[in-house]
Amino acid sequence: MNMSDFYSDGARRLKPSAIRKMVHLIDKPGIISLAGGMPSTETFPMDIIRELFDQVYARRGPAAFQYGLTGGIRELAVWLAEFMATRGVTASSENIIMTSGSQQALRLVGEVFLDPGDVAVVELPSYIGGTTALRNAGADLVGVSQADDGIVTDELDATVARLKAQGRRVKLLYTIPNFQNPSGISISTSKRREILRLAARHDFLIIEDDPYYELFFGDSVEQPTMKSLDEDGRVIYLSSFSKILAPGFRAAWMCADPAIVRTIEIAKEAADICSSTMDQAIVLAYCKDGHLARHVPKIRRFYYERRNVMVDALRRHMPAGVTWTEPSGGFFCWARLPSGLDSEAMLPESVDRGVAYVVGAPFHVDGGGQNTLRLAYSKEAPNSLTRGVEILSKLISDHLRDPNGSRTGN
Amino acid sequence: MNMSDFYSDGARRLKPSAIRKMVHLIDKPGIISLAGGMPSTETFPMDIIRELFDQVYARRGPAAFQYGLTGGIRELAVWLAEFMATRGVTASSENIIMTSGSQQALRLVGEVFLDPGDVAVVELPSYIGGTTALRNAGADLVGVSQADDGIVTDELDATVARLKAQGRRVKLLYTIPNFQNPSGISISTSKRREILRLAARHDFLIIEDDPYYELFFGDSVEQPTMKSLDEDGRVIYLSSFSKILAPGFRAAWMCADPAIVRTIEIAKEAADICSSTMDQAIVLAYCKDGHLARHVPKIRRFYYERRNVMVDALRRHMPAGVTWTEPSGGFFCWARLPSGLDSEAMLPESVDRGVAYVVGAPFHVDGGGQNTLRLAYSKEAPNSLTRGVEILSKLISDHLRDPNGSRTGN
Repeated sequence: MNMSDFYSDGARRLKPSAIRKMVHLIDKPGIISLAGGMPSTETFPMDIIRELFDQVYARRGPAAFQYGLTGGIRELAVWLAEFMATRGVTASSENIIMTSGSQQALRLVGEVFLDPGDVAVVELPSYIGGTTALRNAGADLVGVSQADDGIVTDELDATVARLKAQGRRVKLLYTIPNFQNPSGISISTSKRREILRLAARHDFLIIEDDPYYELFFGDSVEQPTMKSLDEDGRVIYLSSFSKILAPGFRAAWMCADPAIVRTIEIAKEAADICSSTMDQAIVLAYCKDGHLARHVPKIRRFYYERRNVMVDALRRHMPAGVTWTEPSGGFFCWARLPSGLDSEAMLPESVDRGVAYVVGAPFHVDGGGQNTLRLAYSKEAPNSLTRGVEILSKLISDHLRDPNGSRTGN
Repeated sequence: MNMSDFYSDGARRLKPSAIRKMVHLIDKPGIISLAGGMPSTETFPMDIIRELFDQVYARRGPAAFQYGLTGGIRELAVWLAEFMATRGVTASSENIIMTSGSQQALRLVGEVFLDPGDVAVVELPSYIGGTTALRNAGADLVGVSQADDGIVTDELDATVARLKAQGRRVKLLYTIPNFQNPSGISISTSKRREILRLAARHDFLIIEDDPYYELFFGDSVEQPTMKSLDEDGRVIYLSSFSKILAPGFRAAWMCADPAIVRTIEIAKEAADICSSTMDQAIVLAYCKDGHLARHVPKIRRFYYERRNVMVDALRRHMPAGVTWTEPSGGFFCWARLPSGLDSEAMLPESVDRGVAYVVGAPFHVDGGGQNTLRLAYSKEAPNSLTRGVEILSKLISDHLRDPNGSRTGN
């Protein structure tokens, strides 16, 4: 039988993510991986996790392993509502729903808000998991450029105006305002305010995807969350425990207008009934007993050190003509090669030389970005980061000298 | 702002499940609940869970809390592929994908196979979570009656033939062949074979949802799984650890044609990246170390005892004219009242008298079943089951004597 005869229109649109397709290429033993966007297992608070399990087991007993409410453990929703105050947001548990990672929230937002033919505006570049979730709902994705201080708001305005003039329905903007995956860029305060003004003027929703919020390298996140500036409930705020505890606990939360939360909850009931109850109970204990507050500063220092190592290596080794971001938080630097160089074409040679990265083009919904690449400092130890950037810099230098260069490159 | 202006067509179709709507009515302290379809927390192997966590923590370390593969832990997929032999199925890990409960599998099947306007055929009655997942994909659901030995295959044949003659695309049949939720009915072997013949003749897929397989009360499940009879890969088989370990671990598996598994995996990547990795690691340890094989017989005895208590009480107390199923496994008896009685109208009075059940109508996609109700013996202790059936029988007797009876009913 040919199964594809049975597939839905949606299934015919499904594509494996570009990162998934790259895995066979970059997943080699001994390789220095600047590719993986995962948190380092070294940041997982193993002793605390042991203690949290013991506590959940003893205090909750069998109830910790029963089906839970679709919206999540109520006590956790209450805690997160209060926690949102640290991000400038006044919320109650009615504003909060737990999801199986923010990925599930993105997929449910797609399901609940996007019809085929609707437009979702995204940053150039943007997180592939986010753009895929929105595209799977049948939306057309339109990209807007980023400057060093975030999305170009004039271009956002003009793009939405043009689409509306064409009779298109622009339903939402998807943005990762802090230490963006993949670019490492944060949006300035003035641009955040301008984005909200544009959203009100053009009447679109804002998906504020903020998984890296706590991973700032200065004294705090300098800019207010857009949710904290949101007066009419059009910001759907997403955050997660994946980077501040561990991603294997599929525990994330959405903070949004109660009407949206209720609708997302109904869609989630059909999607998975509830998220792992033990994962949520462990997360609750992590939050309530002050572990989160004590542990997160260690995670910040961990990634700050690595970020500094990578930035230092980039400054020392990258040839002239290559530019990169120097993020104030999160996991990623983003490099731009002189035009004419193609990061996808270079990848096999880079892997041969012992370094993997993620090519930038798949993060661009407009088909651009061939000369860009994402460099994660989250996975490798400092000396490997330095060595990896050195090797990569040499490769790029070789290609700059000889754009059609030989595969051995020496 | 009015959020509903932004909703997708799909979101406008979303309805809270009928059970969810009933919760405020039946979730009263002290009530005898014949309503909940959850496993009893008494069946959760708490000592084993403690041991499994310790083992996963010690052996896997931080990797147990990292992102995992979308398809699930490979070692678990390999184990489950071999385990499928106990259900008559020859499989490899290519046939297996882990999902966040079978509910996620049902939602992904809906996404991957159903376009708005496609037809999915379901049993009358059928599991609400299943019908909701398929309806959320935009499919039209058409019901086919059940007899004591399962779906009426002549009616299935005629229904599909009629729909096809009308130009409709019948994509799939959704069936729960063993100890069905809600009816407790199992499909006979001859009917399973006939369903497969009809699927081949009319070219539709079969979703075989089999969460209760291990909970048989005789020596074994008497009938072969349809997947074991499937020669051309049209059966998508779903099963779960929710009833044989605990549902808080959101761990279920699909066994299907490798092409289907790959497509479901791509859809799942956008839906939640991966299921809880700790949950899966614990499930793997539960399976590999023989705990599953040792523990499941205890679960069988537990529910068999309760089933016998309920069936005995029904035989002793129910007035003439009421019929019910006596299941050979699973969680549920299904009662049919003399026509004219309406289980939904009776529910508030039943709750007043101290007993909750689930009304039957929402399990019927054809709008019928007003005189039916689901009675779960999974939750309450034996003496409460007896008492609950007694109270309910008295209520029904009162209504039979006086169909317009007073609310006090005495």
